[in-house]
Amino acid sequence: MTATAFEKSRSALQQNDQRVWSLIVTLFGDMAQAENDRISATQLAKITEILGIKPEATRVALHRLRKDGWLISEKSGRNSRYGLSEFGRSQSMAASARIYGETSAKSGDWHVLILPSKPLAARNAMAKPLLENGYKALNNSVLLGQGSAPEQDEFLVLAAGDTPVPDWVSVQVFSKSMAAEITSFSLRLQSAKKTLNTGFTPLETVALRVLIVHHWRRLVLRLPEMPDALQPKNWPEPQCRRLVHELLKQLQRPRLKTL
Amino acid sequence: MTATAFEKSRSALQQNDQRVWSLIVTLFGDMAQAENDRISATQLAKITEILGIKPEATRVALHRLRKDGWLISEKSGRNSRYGLSEFGRSQSMAASARIYGETSAKSGDWHVLILPSKPLAARNAMAKPLLENGYKALNNSVLLGQGSAPEQDEFLVLAAGDTPVPDWVSVQVFSKSMAAEITSFSLRLQSAKKTLNTGFTPLETVALRVLIVHHWRRLVLRLPEMPDALQPKNWPEPQCRRLVHELLKQLQRPRLKTL
Repeated sequence: MTATAFEKSRSALQQNDQRVWSLIVTLFGDMAQAENDRISATQLAKITEILGIKPEATRVALHRLRKDGWLISEKSGRNSRYGLSEFGRSQSMAASARIYGETSAKSGDWHVLILPSKPLAARNAMAKPLLENGYKALNNSVLLGQGSAPEQDEFLVLAAGDTPVPDWVSVQVFSKSMAAEITSFSLRLQSAKKTLNTGFTPLETVALRVLIVHHWRRLVLRLPEMPDALQPKNWPEPQCRRLVHELLKQLQRPRLKTL
Repeated sequence: MTATAFEKSRSALQQNDQRVWSLIVTLFGDMAQAENDRISATQLAKITEILGIKPEATRVALHRLRKDGWLISEKSGRNSRYGLSEFGRSQSMAASARIYGETSAKSGDWHVLILPSKPLAARNAMAKPLLENGYKALNNSVLLGQGSAPEQDEFLVLAAGDTPVPDWVSVQVFSKSMAAEITSFSLRLQSAKKTLNTGFTPLETVALRVLIVHHWRRLVLRLPEMPDALQPKNWPEPQCRRLVHELLKQLQRPRLKTL
């Protein structure tokens, strides 16, 4: 028995650690982000099955996603239909620009924020909310932020704009481990690309799209939101992004009712 | 026996820790900075005597200043005449703008320099030459520098210009202990001002000038060369500087030959 083109593509793209609930979030974000889009329980069962997910795991994930307020469900005769909740839809839309954008489309502005000379614990406490909001630490008193310098009087804040960026800064913001992850994903995409043909069923197409978008989403949402000027030479993201878009273009999104 | 106006002024201005050689450097800088200016051994003896310095201490200081290349001496009959060496004159001239300027006249530009993320010892080694050249440390990875941002690719350097300055930055650059020293000198000057009259002999005038310039020189050369925008509110330097100039104006510099 030889593997089909779909099976080859799927195995190139499939990760070991994929969480079912997260994969389902990706699916809804990719296929059913409009307000009245619904995916039926039957369709969900088919999609998850073709992705090699057990029915029980799908049930548990759906339960959790409803409980956490990501999904809503409606009865429709003997079938159930699922859709993104208002919360789930807003989260999904917020991430879409970063996932589906053809460029990272980040502002060129950035700034440096210097914490006051206080004991380390106090500085860490000051840095925490900033780090949770996209700031990157250069060391325990210097943070980099995206966009123009905010007005405040607690920190010393310097607009960076066209400031030349030494290599050690780039590498600290755009880490080598992140670069390695992106490069490894690019290799998966290139491998999948070889077996991509146009003969996939709508179900297979959806499954492959979900695998691509899911992995990409997890990478891209962890990327520092920092201007391109801060990227190290040969930062692999732009190339990986082009590949993602190339593959998604080949795997045209099928209409829901064809599933 | 009541103290004369000179004695009162002198005791208001005299410090305990004054070093004779340093006082003589001040004297030459104030009275004999021109290329061919000379002060004779006899004149030096009179001036140091009136300042309460023992002849032996004067001799030792003159010996050291010649050995260190600050002063040159010429025989002139039975008398010796001293003058600033080329080196001494250039040092003296370099300090003059800061000592005698009516304003601190510093550039408004400054910049922030961030050291690479390396072990503390390596960072300290990188910071050392910068700190010796007027940079001020905010912490062990952030230095402030005067003037526009230098071009280099080792540090992250940010032009500061009109950056708002939080209080903790001002206080770290312009320290409270420095403020206290300046204020204490201002009080001495105010006290001396009360006994300043116009009846001093040329010798007394020179002696009082030397005491004022000497103390001021030692303060002003330790002041951070940083833009006024970085000064804390109520920074006492401008007021002290005005007082110095007011007193020096009253104590018009006598001509050397009148001594």
